[in-house]
Amino acid sequence: MRFRLTPHDTSFFDLFSAMGQVLLEGTVLLTEAIGSEPPRRAAIGLAMEDVEHRGDETGRELLRKLDTTFVTPFDREDVHELTSRLDDCLDLMQATVDLVVLVETGPLPPAVGEIVQVLSRQAELTAEAMPRLRSVTTLTDYCSEVGRLENQADQLHRRVLADLLAGGRDVFEAWRVKEVVDRLDGVADAFERVAHTVRTLAVKES
Amino acid sequence: MRFRLTPHDTSFFDLFSAMGQVLLEGTVLLTEAIGSEPPRRAAIGLAMEDVEHRGDETGRELLRKLDTTFVTPFDREDVHELTSRLDDCLDLMQATVDLVVLVETGPLPPAVGEIVQVLSRQAELTAEAMPRLRSVTTLTDYCSEVGRLENQADQLHRRVLADLLAGGRDVFEAWRVKEVVDRLDGVADAFERVAHTVRTLAVKES
Amino acid sequence: MRFRLTPHDTSFFDLFSAMGQVLLEGTVLLTEAIGSEPPRRAAIGLAMEDVEHRGDETGRELLRKLDTTFVTPFDREDVHELTSRLDDCLDLMQATVDLVVLVETGPLPPAVGEIVQVLSRQAELTAEAMPRLRSVTTLTDYCSEVGRLENQADQLHRRVLADLLAGGRDVFEAWRVKEVVDRLDGVADAFERVAHTVRTLAVKES
Repeated sequence: MRFRLTPHDTSFFDLFSAMGQVLLEGTVLLTEAIGSEPPRRAAIGLAMEDVEHRGDETGRELLRKLDTTFVTPFDREDVHELTSRLDDCLDLMQATVDLVVLVETGPLPPAVGEIVQVLSRQAELTAEAMPRLRSVTTLTDYCSEVGRLENQADQLHRRVLADLLAGGRDVFEAWRVKEVVDRLDGVADAFERVAHTVRTLAVKES
Repeated sequence: MRFRLTPHDTSFFDLFSAMGQVLLEGTVLLTEAIGSEPPRRAAIGLAMEDVEHRGDETGRELLRKLDTTFVTPFDREDVHELTSRLDDCLDLMQATVDLVVLVETGPLPPAVGEIVQVLSRQAELTAEAMPRLRSVTTLTDYCSEVGRLENQADQLHRRVLADLLAGGRDVFEAWRVKEVVDRLDGVADAFERVAHTVRTLAVKES
Repeated sequence: MRFRLTPHDTSFFDLFSAMGQVLLEGTVLLTEAIGSEPPRRAAIGLAMEDVEHRGDETGRELLRKLDTTFVTPFDREDVHELTSRLDDCLDLMQATVDLVVLVETGPLPPAVGEIVQVLSRQAELTAEAMPRLRSVTTLTDYCSEVGRLENQADQLHRRVLADLLAGGRDVFEAWRVKEVVDRLDGVADAFERVAHTVRTLAVKES
């Protein structure tokens, strides 16, 4: 245990709320990356790295606070779990943007934009939920809705996939698009795991 | 907490048992979908959606019961975890059938049928285990056997994959088959995660 | 609860340390498999099966010990969790080697060797960490470093992938390489989940 000058008013809830805001910024950049042409993408990739670093820093701050705090708002392992699950969302978004930069797909099919809209909605709900963790049992609707959105992302994903698999275009271009949409699907899953973790907290308190 | 007319005789164990039965129905439809020609598949897809909705409803019933019950047979978070893991199996089966409907593969290689047989066996064991959750420490054999079957599904999956990757057929058709078998492999993993969760319950009680 | 002649000096820590050693052997064979030509690979595949069986046996020994021991060094479910997560690493390594044997890729790109080096480093750190589980709160650096390595593996993975997706070679050969590197990426994730589990233990004790 080492000394740290954590201001007294930075609570766990403040830090989780900060994570929620970073996720929101992440989906804004993800939307831009998906919608832009190759020359613009590199700059967005750099901005995304910056956002991810800030997310990492907030995650580390949460773990430091956990290591140096005796009384925590939830079971210690649940603070850790929620931190990791939020971090996963950001990691996967950054990985997706990085892949979009690296593989030079042409313009992506419109349904890909629809998937990103679903992810953005998940991020909004997550960002709204984080400051309300104090009264976690009121977050049941958030959890269900994020799960419903994950289902919707899955359906869109399968539709894009079926279209790519129908053939009739360059197989490598089809494959590039497929790798991007697979990762977007992974982001939707990651948001659902955050919601699952929050639901676990609610279940323990109910 | 809201009023609900849950009949007193519907226990957590009854609801988990109902989930087990729904999973069994799911593998029956999955087997049909894999074995049938494209024109039949759409009808099976609709039947599978219906089965999935019933599974969802049972899952929601479990969570409602959890929110309104003070004394639970396992730690509250474990009831939640097991419910989610069972729900995952069904989600992934429905996603697989939906993909089989959407991508028009020709007849699937026989080894694909073998994988589905392994999943059906996992579902049977799971359905048999659910009513026995009352004495969870007796379920160790079920857990090991589902793990062994997952291994077997993995091996079959790799064999099909190696065959597809050898080339010599239309790459898009190979890819369509690959997406289907990948999802079947995911179902086998999901059954193993259910068994892992049950093993955790046993470990806590032993 | 049945009688067993577990020697008194085989502690949970000894068994976890043994698992760490087996993982290390696994990465040695993985490195060989990746670097060798097809005729050599089958023998390595057999050696890997043997290593995996020993890992399984150690895992079973851990669970048996758990079922017959009243006082455990961590919460019972955490001993189970850590055992399963270590087992996952080995399963995925064996699956990767098996796939390398089954699909006859030509020589793999050098970046694939770099990924395997990262995994080997993760295995070394894990093997070093296991005997130190007694003082789990000192393992924070191990956890962070394994996470950092996972990130590095991810980046290498995306670089190989982007290269394959650029086209210009036989699509089936590109695909074979892709399946191998995807699995290596899965191994890196599995090591990170071990570290995550260890971090959870530390968080509970801190």
